[in-house]
Amino acid sequence: MKKLKIGICGWGNVATGLFNTIKNNNDKIRLNGNLDIEIVVIGARRDNPKCNPGDIKIERDIFDVIDNEIDVVVELIGGVEVARDLILKAIKNKKHVVTANKAVIFHHGDEIFNEASANGVKVLFESSVCAGTPIIKLLTEELSANNVTKIAGMLNGTSNFILSNMEEGADFKPILELAQKEGYAEPDPTFDIEGMDAAHKIGILSSLAFGTPLPPGDFYVEGISKIEKIDFKYAKEMGYTVKHLAVCKNNEDKIELRAHPVLIKDNSYLANLKSVRNGIEVETDLLGTLHIAGSGAGQESTASGVVSDLVHLANSNINISKSTKKNKCDLIDFLSLSFQYYFYIKAEDIPGVMASITSMFAEKGVGIESIVQKEDLKENMVPIVLITDPFIESDHKDLVTNILNLDSVNEVRSIRIETD
Amino acid sequence: MKKLKIGICGWGNVATGLFNTIKNNNDKIRLNGNLDIEIVVIGARRDNPKCNPGDIKIERDIFDVIDNEIDVVVELIGGVEVARDLILKAIKNKKHVVTANKAVIFHHGDEIFNEASANGVKVLFESSVCAGTPIIKLLTEELSANNVTKIAGMLNGTSNFILSNMEEGADFKPILELAQKEGYAEPDPTFDIEGMDAAHKIGILSSLAFGTPLPPGDFYVEGISKIEKIDFKYAKEMGYTVKHLAVCKNNEDKIELRAHPVLIKDNSYLANLKSVRNGIEVETDLLGTLHIAGSGAGQESTASGVVSDLVHLANSNINISKSTKKNKCDLIDFLSLSFQYYFYIKAEDIPGVMASITSMFAEKGVGIESIVQKEDLKENMVPIVLITDPFIESDHKDLVTNILNLDSVNEVRSIRIETD
Repeated sequence: MKKLKIGICGWGNVATGLFNTIKNNNDKIRLNGNLDIEIVVIGARRDNPKCNPGDIKIERDIFDVIDNEIDVVVELIGGVEVARDLILKAIKNKKHVVTANKAVIFHHGDEIFNEASANGVKVLFESSVCAGTPIIKLLTEELSANNVTKIAGMLNGTSNFILSNMEEGADFKPILELAQKEGYAEPDPTFDIEGMDAAHKIGILSSLAFGTPLPPGDFYVEGISKIEKIDFKYAKEMGYTVKHLAVCKNNEDKIELRAHPVLIKDNSYLANLKSVRNGIEVETDLLGTLHIAGSGAGQESTASGVVSDLVHLANSNINISKSTKKNKCDLIDFLSLSFQYYFYIKAEDIPGVMASITSMFAEKGVGIESIVQKEDLKENMVPIVLITDPFIESDHKDLVTNILNLDSVNEVRSIRIETD
Repeated sequence: MKKLKIGICGWGNVATGLFNTIKNNNDKIRLNGNLDIEIVVIGARRDNPKCNPGDIKIERDIFDVIDNEIDVVVELIGGVEVARDLILKAIKNKKHVVTANKAVIFHHGDEIFNEASANGVKVLFESSVCAGTPIIKLLTEELSANNVTKIAGMLNGTSNFILSNMEEGADFKPILELAQKEGYAEPDPTFDIEGMDAAHKIGILSSLAFGTPLPPGDFYVEGISKIEKIDFKYAKEMGYTVKHLAVCKNNEDKIELRAHPVLIKDNSYLANLKSVRNGIEVETDLLGTLHIAGSGAGQESTASGVVSDLVHLANSNINISKSTKKNKCDLIDFLSLSFQYYFYIKAEDIPGVMASITSMFAEKGVGIESIVQKEDLKENMVPIVLITDPFIESDHKDLVTNILNLDSVNEVRSIRIETD
C-alpha cells in the first residue's frame, strides 16, 4: 500500500470535514484507494471548537506547515494571493499540492503548474469545481481517448438554489436571504450571483478539456440578479425554464467561453437539476453526450474530492496539470456569436406600441419568432414578451437601447436562449 | 510515456471501433492518457469488409493471439464460456485482460479475478456496464473515500428505448420491431427485455460498490414485456412514469439486489433519461446523491471505455478487481422487502365489483392509498387502477392470484413503485 504524509493548511469547515473523513473512512480509502494517509500537521491560526485534532502538530503560521516532513500540502485557506504564495512555496520545497480553491487556480494556475513541472511535483484540484463530484478526473482521465467538443454546466449552487426557488414562485431578494440564512450563500453573495464563481469554474474546465492555458478573465460573464419571477412564468408557457449556464466550446481552435443566464428547454437534463445541485453536460466524439451531477458544495463532498486527489497522487502516473497544453487560449469574440433571445418589454398600453417596438427589431434586421402582449395590466402598462430569431450579439446592446429610448417603453429585459 | 502492446480478440463492430479510435485519437490518448498503444495482433476468424487492419498480424484462431508478444489481451468476442477460457488462458500467460463482456464477468468474475491475482496481472471491464460511460472507475476510484449505500440504474438501452417510446404512445410490439430494425435490439431480444442484461450489470456494480464477490444469479429479475401502453397513461395521471430499474443497496451487510419495472416520479432524474440512454444514481455518505449518464452502447463509446482501461492499466497502481472483498455476498430475501404497488385490474362493470376487489386487499391487510374506476369502457369491462400502501413482497403473488380468481376480474397487472 502507498503512504502519504500530509499537512493541512486551514482549519475551517472544509479542513475539519477532511480530517473527519480521513479518520472515519480510513478502511475504505486503504482498501479502494490503496492509500494510507497520515495527517502530520495542521496549519490553524486558531483552534476550531467543533473539531479536536488530538495529537496532531499545529502550526499557527500556515507557511510553517511546509517545513514539516510531509509529502503533500493540502491548501484549504481560500482566497487568492496568500494561497498562491503558499502553494508556490510548497512546490519550491518539493511538496505536492492538493487544493479546493478555484480562484487561485483560475488566476494563477499556469504559473503554479509550470512551477510544479519544474520542481517535479503535482498539483491537483478536483474539489475546485463542483466539490467532490468528480468532474475533473472524468474529463482528464476517464475521457482520455475522447475529443471534447463542448461543456455546458450549472456550476454555482447558490445561483441554482435561487433560480430553482424562483421557478416555484419565490422572489429574488427573500430567497437570497433564505440562502444566506441556510448557509448556501455567502454574507456577501456578489461572487456567486454575479457569475464569477461559475466563470472561474468553466475557465478551469475549458483549459483541461481543450488543453489550453487558463483563459483570460475578461470573457462574457453575467449573473442572475436581474432575473425576475415573471420571466419563469413566461418561459414556462413556451416550454423553457431559466438557469445560469457556463459554457465552453471548441471551435476550430478558438474557444467559445461564457457564463450567463439562459432560457433552456424545461425537459432538458440541466433544467431538471434543482436546488444547490451542480452538473455538467459534456459532448465528445466517442461518447456522445455525457452527464454528471452531484452536490456542488459541502465539507464532506469537498473532502471526498481532496481524498480522490490524494489517491491519484499516490497511485497514478498521469499528471493532470502537466504541460500538454497549447501555447495560448484564443477566445472567440463574444460579440460575434449569435443567439436567439427572449425579450420582456414593459410598454404603455396604447395603439401602435407593438408596431413601434417591432420596427426596432426590423431596423436591425432581427426576425421575431413569436410576440405576445400579455394581460397582466398594471398602471396602463403591459408586458410584451417575444422570442427572436438568432441574431449577432454585437447588435444586442444597441437594440436594447433603441427599445428603451421609445417613449412608450419603460423596461426591457433580455435573456439568451440556449438552443443546443 | 508508457507503452502497451495489445492483442484484440474479435473483429466485429466493437473491435473495429477500437481499432479506429486508437488510430484516430492517438494524439489525445498519448497526451492525456500518457500512453502509446500498439496493436500487435488481431484475432479474427474472418475478415471484416468494413475495416482494413493494414499490416497488423491476423490470427484466425483467437486463442493464438495470446501467444504473441503482447502485454494485454482485449477480449471482444462476447459470449460466456469461450470468453472465459480465453481470458483464463491469457491470465495464465501473464497477460493483462481488458473486456467489455458483462456476461463473462458476472458468471465467472470471481474465478477470473482470483486467477489474475495469483498471476500478478489485472482484469479491467469498464465497458461491461454502460459502455464507455465511466461508471466503474467512478465507483472504484473517484469515490474511493465514500461508502456507497445505494445504486439505482437504468442499465439496459433497449428496454429504455422501448419504454420511452411507449410513454409517447407507442405499443410494445411495433416499437420492439423498430428497435430491432434500428439495431438497438438484438434479433433475439429476450436477454434485454426480460431484464437479464440489466441484472448482470447491477450485479457487477453491486460487487464493486460493496466489496463482495459477484452475487448469485437467482436474485429477483423481471423484464418489461408485460408493461402496457395504458400503464403510462395512468402512471402519468398520478405523477409517475414507468422505467426498468436495477437496484443494489447495502443494508447492514446484507445486499438488496433486484431488477424490474417500476413506477417512479416523472420529475425524477432517472425518469428523464430517455431513449437508449443509460444512467445511474449513486448514494454515498460523503457526496450525497451523484448522477452519471451517457450512451449505454455503441462501438465508439465501448472503445472509449476500453481505452480508459488501457490508460488505467499503464498508469495506475490501483487494482479494481483485487481481492479486497468480503468472503461472501449475502442477499436479502426479496420476499421480505416491502413495496407500494400500482395495480391495473380489468373487471366487469357490475355493482359490487369494487367491494369484492377491495376486500381482497383488506384480507391481506394491505391498505389502499387511492383507487379509481376508469371510464375506458369496452365490452362491459372497466379498468380499475389503484395504488397500495407498502406491503410485504411475500403477500404479493397470493394477492394477485386471489384477485384473478374473482369471477368479475379477467386481468391483473401490478408494478412496484420506487419511492426513494
